[in-house]
Amino acid sequence: MQEPLVGDAFGELVRDALAVHTGVGPRPLAGGRLPRPVIEIIERDDGLINGAPAAPYLDPPSAWPDHDHRALSRVRGRVLDIGVGAGRIALELQQRGVPVTGLDVSSGAIEVCRRRGVRDLVLATVDEHAAAGPRYDTFLLLGNNLGLIGGADRAPAFLAALAALARPGAQVIAHGTDPYNTTDPVHTAYHRLNRARGRLGGQLRLRVRYRELTTDWFDYLVCSVDELRELVAGTPWRVTDIDDADAPYYLATLELAAAG
Amino acid sequence: MQEPLVGDAFGELVRDALAVHTGVGPRPLAGGRLPRPVIEIIERDDGLINGAPAAPYLDPPSAWPDHDHRALSRVRGRVLDIGVGAGRIALELQQRGVPVTGLDVSSGAIEVCRRRGVRDLVLATVDEHAAAGPRYDTFLLLGNNLGLIGGADRAPAFLAALAALARPGAQVIAHGTDPYNTTDPVHTAYHRLNRARGRLGGQLRLRVRYRELTTDWFDYLVCSVDELRELVAGTPWRVTDIDDADAPYYLATLELAAAG
Repeated sequence: MQEPLVGDAFGELVRDALAVHTGVGPRPLAGGRLPRPVIEIIERDDGLINGAPAAPYLDPPSAWPDHDHRALSRVRGRVLDIGVGAGRIALELQQRGVPVTGLDVSSGAIEVCRRRGVRDLVLATVDEHAAAGPRYDTFLLLGNNLGLIGGADRAPAFLAALAALARPGAQVIAHGTDPYNTTDPVHTAYHRLNRARGRLGGQLRLRVRYRELTTDWFDYLVCSVDELRELVAGTPWRVTDIDDADAPYYLATLELAAAG
Repeated sequence: MQEPLVGDAFGELVRDALAVHTGVGPRPLAGGRLPRPVIEIIERDDGLINGAPAAPYLDPPSAWPDHDHRALSRVRGRVLDIGVGAGRIALELQQRGVPVTGLDVSSGAIEVCRRRGVRDLVLATVDEHAAAGPRYDTFLLLGNNLGLIGGADRAPAFLAALAALARPGAQVIAHGTDPYNTTDPVHTAYHRLNRARGRLGGQLRLRVRYRELTTDWFDYLVCSVDELRELVAGTPWRVTDIDDADAPYYLATLELAAAG
């Protein structure tokens, strides 16, 4: 088999999801005729593959899970929406008059956000954006984007970049999932494999595939609250609240520790 | 990356689709909690990948495309439903009092059909089934299953197996799709690649993936009506009708030529 092309797979799929959502522009058809739903395919490095409809990236607030609403109720000051995706969170904040910047590494995602009306957008990693100098009061990592913390190797640099972007008293509001609430051997075996190679159990090695494209492989961390606490220890941040009303999902709030 | 395990990926996905459909039995959950739709993932050997909801395998007749109904109106005598899948066609024929046998190479699909009430089922290829000696008046290849004719290499043996299974005057009713009604470079480049390696343009090399499993690679032919006519020439069959009211989809009817 030919390997898929490395490219902006995520951007292409949100672009197509927007076309399906609005009915405007070219969009995927079965047999060149029937509309087909846009499916995001995520491959894990042990051969596991899953598909999920992309439509929820465009869901209005009425369709969101409760924890997204609880996250937004905690927002204060100037907001950086990290992994802005198709912009559903940034658009709602903008509507509420909250100053918000959307950040993503996918140029297709940034373009979709722009077309949907998100005004302030940055195509960059958090590290690149930190070098540019802006400052924020709230960092949002919603839609399971606590995963962007990556793993034990990446977490210190990721959290340092957020600290460099932070105003005094800044907070991170991150949506995570406890991965250990399963007896599915596909997952428990993967957790063991990960530990055997010196990674956290839920440190997923993933790539997103869409049609002929794939992203590069990247680490996406699904961790327990205890693991999160260990990753945060020794960084400029401290965990000040865990909302696990929707367990195994949780919202973690981190606050900037006093300068030391 | 680890290669996925070769196994009954199709069977597992229809099993899960049945569990979601009925609400009975273990079924896929996101985060161990929220039901998620079952997605069939099909990978092509040029790296293209597509996901599609599996739910339509269980659709009631009211949700079928028109050409499925037109196909059933042509049925006569004893029927072999080739690639019976989750049994939607066989169940409807059984309900109408038509004698029908469901054939599939997926043991999971056969089990799902049995649980849904299909009475006469065979786990085999058409070649294996021909050796067993039963005879039929109508062969159904619906849900795009004209594709099972495979390609120019496989078609003569496939059509010979059907002839061996045929009573005098038997017919094949097959649903195909003309693949050439596209300007999508992903597809036109694949058609060129195929021709360069001595295959028909739409002779897809595919595997079905579901979670940790994959099928072996197999050929699935998407061909034009002209290509079909060439494949059928010189076999015991002749093309007697093409219904292309839903182009690029078509229903091809083949009839057994007089013994010669």
